[in-house]
Amino acid sequence: MTTLNVAMIGHGFMGAAHSQGWRVAPRFFDLDAQPVMELVVGRTGAQGSAEKWGWNSSSADWREAVERDDIDVIDIVTPGDSHAEIAIAALDAGKHVLCEKPLANSVAEAQAMTDAATRAAARGVFAMTGFTFRRVPAATLARDIVASGRLGRIYQVRASYLQDWLTDPAAPFVWRLDKSLAGSGALGDIAAHAVDLTQFVTGSTLTTVSGIIETLVPERDGQRVTVDDLALFHGRLDSGVLVNIEATRLATGRKNALRIEVSGDAGAISFDLEDMNSLQFYDATAPQAERGFTTIMVTEPVHPYIAAWWPPGHTLGYEHGFSNQVKDFVDGITSLTQPRPSFADGLQVQRVLAAVEASSAQGSAWLPV
Amino acid sequence: MTTLNVAMIGHGFMGAAHSQGWRVAPRFFDLDAQPVMELVVGRTGAQGSAEKWGWNSSSADWREAVERDDIDVIDIVTPGDSHAEIAIAALDAGKHVLCEKPLANSVAEAQAMTDAATRAAARGVFAMTGFTFRRVPAATLARDIVASGRLGRIYQVRASYLQDWLTDPAAPFVWRLDKSLAGSGALGDIAAHAVDLTQFVTGSTLTTVSGIIETLVPERDGQRVTVDDLALFHGRLDSGVLVNIEATRLATGRKNALRIEVSGDAGAISFDLEDMNSLQFYDATAPQAERGFTTIMVTEPVHPYIAAWWPPGHTLGYEHGFSNQVKDFVDGITSLTQPRPSFADGLQVQRVLAAVEASSAQGSAWLPV
Amino acid sequence: MTTLNVAMIGHGFMGAAHSQGWRVAPRFFDLDAQPVMELVVGRTGAQGSAEKWGWNSSSADWREAVERDDIDVIDIVTPGDSHAEIAIAALDAGKHVLCEKPLANSVAEAQAMTDAATRAAARGVFAMTGFTFRRVPAATLARDIVASGRLGRIYQVRASYLQDWLTDPAAPFVWRLDKSLAGSGALGDIAAHAVDLTQFVTGSTLTTVSGIIETLVPERDGQRVTVDDLALFHGRLDSGVLVNIEATRLATGRKNALRIEVSGDAGAISFDLEDMNSLQFYDATAPQAERGFTTIMVTEPVHPYIAAWWPPGHTLGYEHGFSNQVKDFVDGITSLTQPRPSFADGLQVQRVLAAVEASSAQGSAWLPV
Amino acid sequence: MTTLNVAMIGHGFMGAAHSQGWRVAPRFFDLDAQPVMELVVGRTGAQGSAEKWGWNSSSADWREAVERDDIDVIDIVTPGDSHAEIAIAALDAGKHVLCEKPLANSVAEAQAMTDAATRAAARGVFAMTGFTFRRVPAATLARDIVASGRLGRIYQVRASYLQDWLTDPAAPFVWRLDKSLAGSGALGDIAAHAVDLTQFVTGSTLTTVSGIIETLVPERDGQRVTVDDLALFHGRLDSGVLVNIEATRLATGRKNALRIEVSGDAGAISFDLEDMNSLQFYDATAPQAERGFTTIMVTEPVHPYIAAWWPPGHTLGYEHGFSNQVKDFVDGITSLTQPRPSFADGLQVQRVLAAVEASSAQGSAWLPV
Repeated sequence: MTTLNVAMIGHGFMGAAHSQGWRVAPRFFDLDAQPVMELVVGRTGAQGSAEKWGWNSSSADWREAVERDDIDVIDIVTPGDSHAEIAIAALDAGKHVLCEKPLANSVAEAQAMTDAATRAAARGVFAMTGFTFRRVPAATLARDIVASGRLGRIYQVRASYLQDWLTDPAAPFVWRLDKSLAGSGALGDIAAHAVDLTQFVTGSTLTTVSGIIETLVPERDGQRVTVDDLALFHGRLDSGVLVNIEATRLATGRKNALRIEVSGDAGAISFDLEDMNSLQFYDATAPQAERGFTTIMVTEPVHPYIAAWWPPGHTLGYEHGFSNQVKDFVDGITSLTQPRPSFADGLQVQRVLAAVEASSAQGSAWLPV
Repeated sequence: MTTLNVAMIGHGFMGAAHSQGWRVAPRFFDLDAQPVMELVVGRTGAQGSAEKWGWNSSSADWREAVERDDIDVIDIVTPGDSHAEIAIAALDAGKHVLCEKPLANSVAEAQAMTDAATRAAARGVFAMTGFTFRRVPAATLARDIVASGRLGRIYQVRASYLQDWLTDPAAPFVWRLDKSLAGSGALGDIAAHAVDLTQFVTGSTLTTVSGIIETLVPERDGQRVTVDDLALFHGRLDSGVLVNIEATRLATGRKNALRIEVSGDAGAISFDLEDMNSLQFYDATAPQAERGFTTIMVTEPVHPYIAAWWPPGHTLGYEHGFSNQVKDFVDGITSLTQPRPSFADGLQVQRVLAAVEASSAQGSAWLPV
Repeated sequence: MTTLNVAMIGHGFMGAAHSQGWRVAPRFFDLDAQPVMELVVGRTGAQGSAEKWGWNSSSADWREAVERDDIDVIDIVTPGDSHAEIAIAALDAGKHVLCEKPLANSVAEAQAMTDAATRAAARGVFAMTGFTFRRVPAATLARDIVASGRLGRIYQVRASYLQDWLTDPAAPFVWRLDKSLAGSGALGDIAAHAVDLTQFVTGSTLTTVSGIIETLVPERDGQRVTVDDLALFHGRLDSGVLVNIEATRLATGRKNALRIEVSGDAGAISFDLEDMNSLQFYDATAPQAERGFTTIMVTEPVHPYIAAWWPPGHTLGYEHGFSNQVKDFVDGITSLTQPRPSFADGLQVQRVLAAVEASSAQGSAWLPV
Repeated sequence: MTTLNVAMIGHGFMGAAHSQGWRVAPRFFDLDAQPVMELVVGRTGAQGSAEKWGWNSSSADWREAVERDDIDVIDIVTPGDSHAEIAIAALDAGKHVLCEKPLANSVAEAQAMTDAATRAAARGVFAMTGFTFRRVPAATLARDIVASGRLGRIYQVRASYLQDWLTDPAAPFVWRLDKSLAGSGALGDIAAHAVDLTQFVTGSTLTTVSGIIETLVPERDGQRVTVDDLALFHGRLDSGVLVNIEATRLATGRKNALRIEVSGDAGAISFDLEDMNSLQFYDATAPQAERGFTTIMVTEPVHPYIAAWWPPGHTLGYEHGFSNQVKDFVDGITSLTQPRPSFADGLQVQRVLAAVEASSAQGSAWLPV
């Protein structure tokens, strides 16, 4: 079987997750190319990560990955400020690129990356944005149910991403609180997921937004927090549907609650990442006496991705999204089909985030995306 | 409209609940006879209860209720040791009788009461046992779903009644811990409900049992606890189905969890009194990708009893079972139809409890009911 | 004991609920004055309601209630368009007034009513707005926990009221869809509750808002729907805290989900009316390994209102708020203490709703309340 | 670092799970010896499994694993009928052994295996039974809470393992339904887990049991089902505590619900494998108004095993138990400390199952374990 030599740029928490994806996916899915964990890159300590995670080699310079002829795939898991430079160089060098979200720290960068991706795709080289929560089986099932028309006319969507790691006033200053590295706070880190999931599940695109972002705890460890920790916004999809979105790092007690609920005239779906093996489904066409939200345990072979994993009732965890992502990415490469979310999809999310930021600066004015 | 003059014997906690039933039912249901709260009886303090709860008169002697010609209905809410004497006298005097569960403190008493009820019924005078939890709309809906055949072949039943008011070793001694008054402990007080609900929902009768009862805290306030506080037993229904039943007053954190789950080859239902406005329903015939337990909010006009109450989503509470019970009891009287659960139904529960007690004494031997 | 002769104006669904409150409250609470259900008023069919619900007399003209000297209390449960005229006349005639929410159909009317209430209070005559959901024990407990400081610095609030009775495109046209009678749609009917609950639980007042209202199904039964069916808005409390509020009649599968979550640096509370006997409480000061949302079953004697009702684990329903409300209203009257929510509280909610409507008309501009 | 060459005997569903454990554990945990996936053995098709799962070599004969000097560890994942022969040979050959549960198909075999393990341990060679559900972090946390005394005096335990893969009468005949291969049905397959978890969490041992087993669907695909599909039993721990256990493959809608609840006079814990990232904890010593079951999301670094995995709120799945098991097994080997559950622990479970089977045959007589 043909192999795909992979280089991963970055080796923080996301590096561990992506490593697990590359390691595990080929053991469960039948792939048409065999990924090889060839090179990990980090400015310091990359060799330790190589040994820890099982990469064949390491480097302190991402350019080595771009220049090595034997590298087929570059997987970018660095903070957002370096995404554009690496991704564009990699694509132009003919490497397939998987890039963590948010795609970039600005729309301009994301646009340049998307342009590079378009050029590359013409040569059969593909780029993909790493919104792994699309790959939670229950989220994909939600998308499938909406796409099937089971919910009828969609009336409205509510989505949120609630975390609480900043509720403690004594929580330390980290790079995610520095705008020059992270681009934004709750907005780019977690609202990005809520936006992507909304667009993925509904199959529609946000066209205008109105909202407010705020920094509730402006200083930590004596350092100024330069990003938002709370984002509240309304948006309208191209289908005309209104969406209510909230992203916060101060929702005390909520650890990782990425939620979406879609209401239609024939039914509804509701999902919460904290209960990721379930999907709530309401069938408004059922006999009236039997209507209610059904808790579908999304662990059956008929459910997305599950046939590759375990028997019914044997649940998956956070990291499985990364294996499922590798599967879809490799499938795209080997079938010469653009994998989704593409860089264009990532750019669209970036535009939404930028519009929210601008709306907040203009008194919640409705602005086009 | 014709009236039904009611006398209530007893005025403890159950007296408050029954009073609410008599007071409220005629305001929500269209009854063919108008109950009048005529007389409340208690050895001490009955006049205070009459004023508090709105009964027209009071007495210290239950015989007054039996002897007064203007009394049509006698509602017995005393401890179990006096049920038989009062009920038999009342029935023989031509009064309709509603008697709290457990029907009696012994099978012999329950049998005598049932005989009296049979005699009375021949004269159009009816007796009913007060298993009000049958009248929780979700419990009735569970029965309806099973009766409709929606669950297919029934495989098994698990039922329990979990309370925790005795977990605190310092909880005081009360009459319910005295066998001479209460007859038994968890067995007669709450296992009785689990048994009745099992038989009601399945439409089958327990024929044999094997089990154990135990007193985990044998002394309180320096007084000996003479009843069980935990009962564990298995039983077999006349349909052949095995049932697992647990009743306990020591299930720490469980306040009033009367639960039943019925599993069939086409579906299942699951109910918990702590969440009494919901019924869980699993439809094993649904498309596989959409199967799961549906949380039916049992507050729709199509659901049992609900049309008389509030709009969808406006929930009922504990006491509504007593109003629903009055409705069914009065309907039985006015339509000359035996209301259920009859005294015979109450006797059957009593026999089950007696068999469990005997089985426990005989090393969990399987004994006929 | 002194009596309070009550006249109720209006006899729709709310009339049934208020009747139950007047009927039941005195049987469970020790009141310093005894309410008497004296007169029910309705333009047509009032006599039937009097008989059905147990009022001593009936009338087709509300002025009779104002003019009768023996009437002490007037309880207004008509649609919002008649609240102002009746309430002002009643207060000026020296009657205590309980008025259903929303207080009026316009800020001007609500202001006039509040002025009348102020005049009346100077004479020991009191007015109260009927936000009964404050009186759900779990909601009052939430308020108590916030007021105690257990949650520390409050960061943010999310509140919503989700119903779905308009999701069916074939749902009939009713008076609540007619702006001339109802004033507004989801806004006045249910957002009003979310706003009141937010202000009640936090003890703070909304000062500015930004939002959008919309009518998703503009025609029913051939008649034009002249009110909103969806309202999305953000607001800021006088404490500086941001609030996210959504009210909708199109949240498929949600029957009566009035929800509020308050996040602070020391904890959080979360409430859902569909599960009204519970309160979720997160204690961020607990040992880290034991932190989580605690489902408090709000049925203990130490909880608000519960000592008057049933034993632990025996739940309350929708209607109990009306009995609890009667208790608080009568207590205010007999103790010469202004009961809350006052008309001024109701006016404040009205101002918020008006500001949301104006903001929606001005592109979600932030407007003062 | 020293290495541990591993041979796995068997390559069914359990082989996939164990392979994932060996593959992943060293990437997340710091182990004092590096496991190497050296050899996989299967009567047919082992080479395919080797390639699929990443084992260096394959064989059709388990004796090769025992005879190869370079093999340090033998991991047995075959059906129960071959456990004893392989395990004893492996231990006697100086190989550390990890053996899937149930330890054997009979007490005699399990006893012989335990004897072999005792002999081996004297030489620093260790044997372990594969009850991986002990290694779900929430289950270990439950054990820790009980062991800490937080629950006070333990009153009672209810445990169950509910599956439904046999509810469909058309479900096919498989080896697990053949007594000669599987030893027993629900009893050995899933009751074994409930028994082990009960003993693990309480730190006590079942000494007597009374119960019944039954085969509800006695024929599938024209073949006779020779094992039970339902087991109901009561047991008594050496601490005196009564336990209620149910294991069934016919609990319609329950996919993998291994549950345990332990009630004590100071608190309770409740766990359900279908919601495996949570533990319910009731603290009966909390202020009364704040008591309730707390849903602890067991994903914090302070929780068992979690520090090696993901940030708070990022959940684990079924397979993580196998990685956690490898960690504990390797730690035992490298620290020369008997890992638990030992073969003696597995033998104890086997004795319980045998006693249940005997009790069922003797009319639910209480029998010593």
